[in-house]
Amino acid sequence: MIEIEIPTLLIDESKVRKNIQRMSQKVRNSGIKFRPHFKTHQSRHIGRIFKEVGVDSITVSSVSMAEYFSDDWNDILIAFPVNILEAEKINELAKKVKLSLLFDQIDQVFALNNRLQHTCDAFIKIDTGNKRAGIPFDDITAITELADSLNSSQNLKLTGLLSHAGQSYLTSDPDEIIDIYKGNLTALSDVRKALSHISNDLLLSTGDTPTSSIVEDLSGIDELRPGVFVYYDMMMEEIGACSTDDIAIAMACPVISKYEERNEILIYGGAVHFSKEKLVKNNLSYYGAVVKFNNGYNRSEPVKDTYLYRISQEHGLIRASDEFFAAVNVGDVIGILPVHACLTVDIAAEIKNTDGNPIDRM
Amino acid sequence: MIEIEIPTLLIDESKVRKNIQRMSQKVRNSGIKFRPHFKTHQSRHIGRIFKEVGVDSITVSSVSMAEYFSDDWNDILIAFPVNILEAEKINELAKKVKLSLLFDQIDQVFALNNRLQHTCDAFIKIDTGNKRAGIPFDDITAITELADSLNSSQNLKLTGLLSHAGQSYLTSDPDEIIDIYKGNLTALSDVRKALSHISNDLLLSTGDTPTSSIVEDLSGIDELRPGVFVYYDMMMEEIGACSTDDIAIAMACPVISKYEERNEILIYGGAVHFSKEKLVKNNLSYYGAVVKFNNGYNRSEPVKDTYLYRISQEHGLIRASDEFFAAVNVGDVIGILPVHACLTVDIAAEIKNTDGNPIDRM
Repeated sequence: MIEIEIPTLLIDESKVRKNIQRMSQKVRNSGIKFRPHFKTHQSRHIGRIFKEVGVDSITVSSVSMAEYFSDDWNDILIAFPVNILEAEKINELAKKVKLSLLFDQIDQVFALNNRLQHTCDAFIKIDTGNKRAGIPFDDITAITELADSLNSSQNLKLTGLLSHAGQSYLTSDPDEIIDIYKGNLTALSDVRKALSHISNDLLLSTGDTPTSSIVEDLSGIDELRPGVFVYYDMMMEEIGACSTDDIAIAMACPVISKYEERNEILIYGGAVHFSKEKLVKNNLSYYGAVVKFNNGYNRSEPVKDTYLYRISQEHGLIRASDEFFAAVNVGDVIGILPVHACLTVDIAAEIKNTDGNPIDRM
Repeated sequence: MIEIEIPTLLIDESKVRKNIQRMSQKVRNSGIKFRPHFKTHQSRHIGRIFKEVGVDSITVSSVSMAEYFSDDWNDILIAFPVNILEAEKINELAKKVKLSLLFDQIDQVFALNNRLQHTCDAFIKIDTGNKRAGIPFDDITAITELADSLNSSQNLKLTGLLSHAGQSYLTSDPDEIIDIYKGNLTALSDVRKALSHISNDLLLSTGDTPTSSIVEDLSGIDELRPGVFVYYDMMMEEIGACSTDDIAIAMACPVISKYEERNEILIYGGAVHFSKEKLVKNNLSYYGAVVKFNNGYNRSEPVKDTYLYRISQEHGLIRASDEFFAAVNVGDVIGILPVHACLTVDIAAEIKNTDGNPIDRM
């Protein structure tokens, strides 16, 4: 029995293993390479579980995260357009590991080229519809210009094309998600063709969790980079990328007060624990589903009609069903399945596995 | 000139001093006690600036935060309903400092009473309309029952009534904010009258930043506990509690890319730096206003028609005016005035003052 006094993120490692094995099996069946994104767990310990299924290359979202993992991993891709202000740190890292960088502006190449003393692989970020980062897939002129510039640079080796089809987060229709995946693959393949006079062996790298979870056959791309699937969360459940049973994390929160006049329960657990990422269900915005713990920290299914619906810095308010309200007491510990695993993990002050052992986090 | 490589929260201490002096002057003029909330800055260094204006008692939002400040401060109120699972830590703290606890359930008194070996002051949390925590101000039966229970407990000393009129965050009409303050004061005063047979000298403690900033004469209550005013933020500016010039923090962020086809700028600075707290302006949701830095880290006024409008884990997208878009280059550092100071400070990985000296944060 774990002693919980403050909001504590509990990680169920058996669920983590299942999620990793399932995705790894699919990647193997599709005959492609697995380069999981480590921005969700940010943990060396969890990272090592990926070694058990043969993973040897990883994705991170910052130079600091690459540094954090560079003792354990020798092949690291920073899947965020390169921050030229970190040139020195990048140089240090490239001395130590096989480093891949991401580019979407010719100015980034100019700025880095004469400052790198070690070779880095270079991916071009292609925007296949997400409109966040990258060169639009149909702007072949700009893509070619960047590819040429990388090709003629000294320590940057043009290696592949990379996309993140984040638009898949906006639907929960599996057919639409499959269409997004296909569109993404077609866009990347077309760009590769258009660049064939520059390079014949450009890798295609992609892999948001919704399409990676829902599409069965991932052949056609060369490497897959999903991240959230390691823990999953209520957003992924809402999208249809997982079941609530697949969610490997739950924030254990002390019950502080009960307000009978409004069937609401106050927990110690707020925006500094969950972030303010929310979902809407039956016209109710909510920040997490609620579970009970049985026999230690075995979770129940999410409690019906019961949601974490309002949070401020440390306060969380649960709108509860009559039954749940009656069953809960001041001083109990209940669990919240968060809406967004990445942000919750990033800010969690206390992280343990369900045996009570602390889990490291960057 | 500070070397910025990653998103770095810059604190302008001269603005901090002005904000503290202004509020402290108002409190003095109103003839009441100042018990500032330290949950916004969570910093021993910033806390010490309050000593310069004679502050000797503080408010925090968790037991951990009370522990953090207990070397510097001897009179600490934890303004969050007491978490009985932390009884041992509370006991340790009460041995070291004059500790005030908050109650809104009789079960909290039962659970703590026989576990405390040191006397703590006890405030009753009154809900004056915020509907977050506390007993509704008009439920005199429940309030009396809790007061009686505290009064007959051994190491808990019934000391006062406490409210947080957080409903003031929902309007930007100064008259409405003044009405909220008056309603809050009347509610607390009425409860005090109703409890006069139990105690004759109950303190009234209140103090959200909007009403504390906008109401001129705060007499009638006994102590004021605002927190956000130390830094202010875009939410407070929107409410009318401050001007943008009063905002003492700006997140300095590297410019990563520029996307001409959509007049958008990608910065390194996302949800793990700002949280996902947002405001709506001209139908655009936004996570921060944008400033330029001149001569080191002197800020410009917020840039017109330019907002941080989309964030994910590390990515921030700025929708920029034509002029600003043209003026900014890859590798520049620009500033973001965040929507919510407390959450931004809580998750900031790097905090410095504008001279480049690191500022501690719990």
